[in-house]
Amino acid sequence: METNRVEAFSDGVFAIAITLLILTVGIDRSPRGDLGGYLTGLWPAYLAYTASFLTIGIMWINHHLIFRQFARADGPMMILNLLLLMLIAFLPFPTRVVAEFARSGADRRDAALLYGLTTTITAICFIALWLYGSRRLLHPDADPRVVSGITRSYLPGMPVYGAATLLAFVSATASLVIFGLIAIFYALAAALFSRTPSTVERTAASGDPPL
Amino acid sequence: METNRVEAFSDGVFAIAITLLILTVGIDRSPRGDLGGYLTGLWPAYLAYTASFLTIGIMWINHHLIFRQFARADGPMMILNLLLLMLIAFLPFPTRVVAEFARSGADRRDAALLYGLTTTITAICFIALWLYGSRRLLHPDADPRVVSGITRSYLPGMPVYGAATLLAFVSATASLVIFGLIAIFYALAAALFSRTPSTVERTAASGDPPL
Amino acid sequence: METNRVEAFSDGVFAIAITLLILTVGIDRSPRGDLGGYLTGLWPAYLAYTASFLTIGIMWINHHLIFRQFARADGPMMILNLLLLMLIAFLPFPTRVVAEFARSGADRRDAALLYGLTTTITAICFIALWLYGSRRLLHPDADPRVVSGITRSYLPGMPVYGAATLLAFVSATASLVIFGLIAIFYALAAALFSRTPSTVERTAASGDPPL
Amino acid sequence: METNRVEAFSDGVFAIAITLLILTVGIDRSPRGDLGGYLTGLWPAYLAYTASFLTIGIMWINHHLIFRQFARADGPMMILNLLLLMLIAFLPFPTRVVAEFARSGADRRDAALLYGLTTTITAICFIALWLYGSRRLLHPDADPRVVSGITRSYLPGMPVYGAATLLAFVSATASLVIFGLIAIFYALAAALFSRTPSTVERTAASGDPPL
Repeated sequence: METNRVEAFSDGVFAIAITLLILTVGIDRSPRGDLGGYLTGLWPAYLAYTASFLTIGIMWINHHLIFRQFARADGPMMILNLLLLMLIAFLPFPTRVVAEFARSGADRRDAALLYGLTTTITAICFIALWLYGSRRLLHPDADPRVVSGITRSYLPGMPVYGAATLLAFVSATASLVIFGLIAIFYALAAALFSRTPSTVERTAASGDPPL
Repeated sequence: METNRVEAFSDGVFAIAITLLILTVGIDRSPRGDLGGYLTGLWPAYLAYTASFLTIGIMWINHHLIFRQFARADGPMMILNLLLLMLIAFLPFPTRVVAEFARSGADRRDAALLYGLTTTITAICFIALWLYGSRRLLHPDADPRVVSGITRSYLPGMPVYGAATLLAFVSATASLVIFGLIAIFYALAAALFSRTPSTVERTAASGDPPL
Repeated sequence: METNRVEAFSDGVFAIAITLLILTVGIDRSPRGDLGGYLTGLWPAYLAYTASFLTIGIMWINHHLIFRQFARADGPMMILNLLLLMLIAFLPFPTRVVAEFARSGADRRDAALLYGLTTTITAICFIALWLYGSRRLLHPDADPRVVSGITRSYLPGMPVYGAATLLAFVSATASLVIFGLIAIFYALAAALFSRTPSTVERTAASGDPPL
Repeated sequence: METNRVEAFSDGVFAIAITLLILTVGIDRSPRGDLGGYLTGLWPAYLAYTASFLTIGIMWINHHLIFRQFARADGPMMILNLLLLMLIAFLPFPTRVVAEFARSGADRRDAALLYGLTTTITAICFIALWLYGSRRLLHPDADPRVVSGITRSYLPGMPVYGAATLLAFVSATASLVIFGLIAIFYALAAALFSRTPSTVERTAASGDPPL
């Protein structure tokens, strides 16, 4: 099968999962009591929505990045990709649990563990998909430096998420904060490392006087 | 990354968010009491659904308009686009809150503030995406008049939505009415300004006798 | 704007609205009491799901049929299309109301009226989109017989749905049955009128002996 | 109509139905009581989610496989495809029922019957679509061995699902376990039968010394 059909299907699942995150804010609930207080009290839901939106968005960008290195799709790759999508589509559930229980002391740890376990397994699926594909399905003209660069930057995902998950046993709050920081870090990294210089910067860099 | 993949993903999020608006009518609720009275009493939900549907629809049209000016995607653009999509996907939530509380005097102001804040931040993300992209990612042959025309027509979005939001402190009803009028205005503008003349009009305009 | 982007976005909304119909079966409800009795008691929901699924599916087929006649998109066409999509995305709501109230005598009429009103307005949007587009946006080489054939077959939609809606004032049950029959009729018509003859039939029709 | 539009629409429905499976885990419910106990008690929901995700994913892969053999779409094929999609989009409902009632002895049988009936009818729609299409819509250059291979591998679907459904009358637990095993079997089969040999294996197979 050609990779572009697999990519189009995966794009669909990414787009739907990311949009269904709105369910985590409780769109299907009737607010109770004073509306203003209810809405501001939803701040953990807004933060969880933002963190998971960035996380799925970054994973979508990375998904494209690795598929661009693949020349074709085969059976194991499609099943590994299906497992990855199964985890992506699952993320709205832990996001909602965190949104509801981040403020409840006794349950915060279980919420953080569920969220962390989901993101850790997602990272494992991601690296498994990449390690399989990069050994068997590479474009003949894939740049080896790009390939090893991707491997280097994706390998830390699993231990980082795993460590943040284990941290929940010590401090659930710290664990949740770190999940948020990881999302922001990846978003900033994606934004800054492939920035396009403006015309002025390009002119300055080239040493030519601006026109 | 090529802009067409970013556009396809964005199209998906726009299409899903616009269709999920049906949740704001309360499809997941069991109507209570007399059905006829319940259904006609939902009129604020129908209006909110219509206003948000037009708003997301117009934003989708504009999103294509600006992406047509871009030659490529880069990191900051993709993150700005992701933030825009995060706000678009969030809109069903304030729409539902407005649908439920537009008739409840005490809470109407908070509902209008939530809706207004969301649309104002959406407008900020939109103009930020455009200002970044129009400086660094333009097609070499983009028409400067089109570019400055887009800037001129998108800049008012933020102050207009911001003013309508602040108006909620004076009159929540007026604020909500204005959000509806803005949606209708943009829809009419989109419909009228790029109308195709009919064959008869074209013939009349060219001064030639009709065949 | 090119029609293929408008079509892709519309396809997305059609596909999401048709899949969200599962909400009308009450996937977000906890069954109560004896499961077997609960599941068989859902028969109005299964019928409503089927009728609306066929209705949206047929409209999607027809939507492609008319877009194939259009050479391009313009502002009024996009807004008419947006209004059509707004009605399509709304259909899960009346479907759910019918599913819940088809068995409740007193409320059946209101449920039928809501469903009928929605499909009647959808038919109006459809014919408005076609009448506008067929006058201004036709492919130069569109076959006039195909164009007038489409007009002839789409014009009855509005009066047929309108009459079935008004029938609800006499008999809500008859009205609901007719909505179901319309859906089945259109599905059968779509299936039978563009059937591909099998190799055997083609051979028989050509009068040649089979090989 | 060209098959690629039908495929794109079908892909959309597959992608949305597979992502909506998250609703079966109860994302729209408020957990009650101790969170840790609630989350671990959801294990039937996790298993049902996994089984249905694999099932829809495999059906999506197979859907592409058969559409690749078709040269074009016609009316009956589109209606058969619509019926197949209607069943696919329905699957989240029985999945949720199983997730909720798999542990409740009295209701387990009815849940298994609903799930089994849905998958059996889905398999009937699938084979009907294939048998119709493979007789009338085949690519002129479709490989007859591939065509008869697909027929051979898809024909058992209906009796296998049907037998597992009837088994529920004897043991609902065995029936549910078998539905899970079928999903895993198909996923493993898809993964293993079209595996790409690694460079090392290819070198070994060719008898040449590795470089």
